[in-house]
Amino acid sequence: MIKNCIENVRSKTPLVHNITNYVTVNDVANALLACGARPIMSDDPEEVEEITSICGGLNINIGTLNKNTIPSMFLAGKKANELGHKVLLDPVGAGASRLRTDTAVKLMKEIKFNVIRGNISEIKTLALGSGRTRGVDADVADAVTENNLDNAISFVKEFAKRQGSIIAVTGAIDLVTDGEKCYVIRNGRAEMGSITGTGCQLSAIITAFLVANPENELEATAAAVCAMGLAGEIGWSNMQLCDGNSTYRNRIIDAIYNMDGETLEKGAKYEIR
Amino acid sequence: MIKNCIENVRSKTPLVHNITNYVTVNDVANALLACGARPIMSDDPEEVEEITSICGGLNINIGTLNKNTIPSMFLAGKKANELGHKVLLDPVGAGASRLRTDTAVKLMKEIKFNVIRGNISEIKTLALGSGRTRGVDADVADAVTENNLDNAISFVKEFAKRQGSIIAVTGAIDLVTDGEKCYVIRNGRAEMGSITGTGCQLSAIITAFLVANPENELEATAAAVCAMGLAGEIGWSNMQLCDGNSTYRNRIIDAIYNMDGETLEKGAKYEIR
Amino acid sequence: MIKNCIENVRSKTPLVHNITNYVTVNDVANALLACGARPIMSDDPEEVEEITSICGGLNINIGTLNKNTIPSMFLAGKKANELGHKVLLDPVGAGASRLRTDTAVKLMKEIKFNVIRGNISEIKTLALGSGRTRGVDADVADAVTENNLDNAISFVKEFAKRQGSIIAVTGAIDLVTDGEKCYVIRNGRAEMGSITGTGCQLSAIITAFLVANPENELEATAAAVCAMGLAGEIGWSNMQLCDGNSTYRNRIIDAIYNMDGETLEKGAKYEIR
Repeated sequence: MIKNCIENVRSKTPLVHNITNYVTVNDVANALLACGARPIMSDDPEEVEEITSICGGLNINIGTLNKNTIPSMFLAGKKANELGHKVLLDPVGAGASRLRTDTAVKLMKEIKFNVIRGNISEIKTLALGSGRTRGVDADVADAVTENNLDNAISFVKEFAKRQGSIIAVTGAIDLVTDGEKCYVIRNGRAEMGSITGTGCQLSAIITAFLVANPENELEATAAAVCAMGLAGEIGWSNMQLCDGNSTYRNRIIDAIYNMDGETLEKGAKYEIR
Repeated sequence: MIKNCIENVRSKTPLVHNITNYVTVNDVANALLACGARPIMSDDPEEVEEITSICGGLNINIGTLNKNTIPSMFLAGKKANELGHKVLLDPVGAGASRLRTDTAVKLMKEIKFNVIRGNISEIKTLALGSGRTRGVDADVADAVTENNLDNAISFVKEFAKRQGSIIAVTGAIDLVTDGEKCYVIRNGRAEMGSITGTGCQLSAIITAFLVANPENELEATAAAVCAMGLAGEIGWSNMQLCDGNSTYRNRIIDAIYNMDGETLEKGAKYEIR
Repeated sequence: MIKNCIENVRSKTPLVHNITNYVTVNDVANALLACGARPIMSDDPEEVEEITSICGGLNINIGTLNKNTIPSMFLAGKKANELGHKVLLDPVGAGASRLRTDTAVKLMKEIKFNVIRGNISEIKTLALGSGRTRGVDADVADAVTENNLDNAISFVKEFAKRQGSIIAVTGAIDLVTDGEKCYVIRNGRAEMGSITGTGCQLSAIITAFLVANPENELEATAAAVCAMGLAGEIGWSNMQLCDGNSTYRNRIIDAIYNMDGETLEKGAKYEIR
């Protein structure tokens, strides 16, 4: 059950190693704390293997990719694989530059990711394995909608199967699949797009959910996606007149902090396809 | 009209490339989203030219200058010039170290900036082209006040003319000039100085306003400066008992998020000299 | 008196140089502003000596240690020592990796720190001088409690004496000692642990208090520790239904912003042992 997934995070307080961007890193740390996990950020090649060894999971996010920390991603990822830790890839901006696309593709080749989470354009860039630098073709980049849902599910399932990873595509409709089952999730609000970092936060939270629910990766990932979307709904319902995107950012993390299993179970809006 | 400037940002949702400091970067991203623009942060030399190519404008901020990203500033700036994109320089701390002063001066020599925005000390450091490392002489560093306003306007106009850039000096009284006309702006509140990053946010917002109002650079810059100051006023009026600078930070960004053209037009306090 | 310590910060507005991590840096800047000080962040080896020269104090935090900025810590620290500036070390994560432990130990050898502030595990790692990479022995890592308080005080006093620095160990009970006197402080709330960066903020604030109270280092450090804990209590008392850790973060900084000497004097809960 979805509710167990968050309750396990709160009772196990998993330690998550993040190699992430400097834009949203503070929110990532607070979002991990909000869901009951503990964050460590570390990106120097000299220490990432040690740091990841004391953690339960590793969250790799390429949001402000730079040459100093790319080697750290490979070192930490391989060490985490070796230790059987959970590893997630957030390919922020894959398709926007050759460096991002190539790095993400190379990471996918050399490291086994339990989950890859991105928006539909990023995921399509990776699925096509292309080095196109301005993102993907327009029709491919089309958002997942009720109209193209069947095709989108097939595409994502196929990629998950080929890649051997759970794929989580987030947007107005979220898809989470291991290649067999696909959770179609309709939590969240459009206004979440006016805050930087909700995707980065979600990737970190998924990693925490994976660590706390090791035998149940698909449901754990779906539960985290539902939790983030539901937090967006609850946070929005707490908005006062004059509040805007900056306060909304706080209210979403606050909503995760206050979310119990019951609330998540009742609020999660998903079907399995 | 001032109001058109913000309305154009909201309708065109310009993409702004930021090479900026790690202190205020999250607020910069949320401030861009608040005014209707979209942020990308990227500072690795290997990708900045590509990233800036897919954007409409480039915001260069030297707030935590380091040797890894200085080359990126030059690469991205030259590429943006080549493509006719809008480029802004925020010379944070120019005058505080030789590295900052020299880098800012060199950037000004090799890159054509549509706008240079700083406080009066930073702008005077650049205008004097000096390598003095502890800032500028005390009398030069004097704040712009009603008493020295005429001299300050002349000084800034002269620098704008010589530099071929719009100069925006922000403080208790803001000056925005292209060398001919000078907007003298009296929006804002002194308490904004107790928050880190309002200047950085403004520089990013100006860049977005430039991209969305390409034929109207001076007015666009002045409109952005008015919007930021007005947001400071509105945000302050929404402060509750027990709120302090951290909440004020959120309320300012919230006020930008909720600001429409009408509010800006009515709230902007400026004269043209 | 404790109250003078914060009043001196507000009247002298000391400038504090921070070489710190990118996770909590924004909160560190706003916390410094909240207590009346002014922040500068700078970590490039080419400018840190100049920057620290124009400041009154230096706050070195190894939270996201990397090879580019380690030399900056030594350069800035030595220059600050040379100039007689106040210098603080926050050994974040000492014990979690060899890089962190070794760097902290080396910093302690080559630089004279007025204050070293950390949690009990970090301080015990440094006191034992060990290179153990997964933290310290479990019994050593034990939290300071009413039950082991006498032993903890002896341990910290001994380390302070040996090191020639004020040692501040923060946790449920905080200890601040110069080797002779030990402030035992019982301000704060457990919920502060669900926010990233309260320790980093405190280290910066202590540095500001040291600069503003140069002849009174021990009391200044204790006052800053009381102020942070009290802000946690006041901030919590201002929490609304639905608020969580993200809003709590703001309310703590807000409480510092609004704290006057009288409030601190009355709210500080300490004994001297």
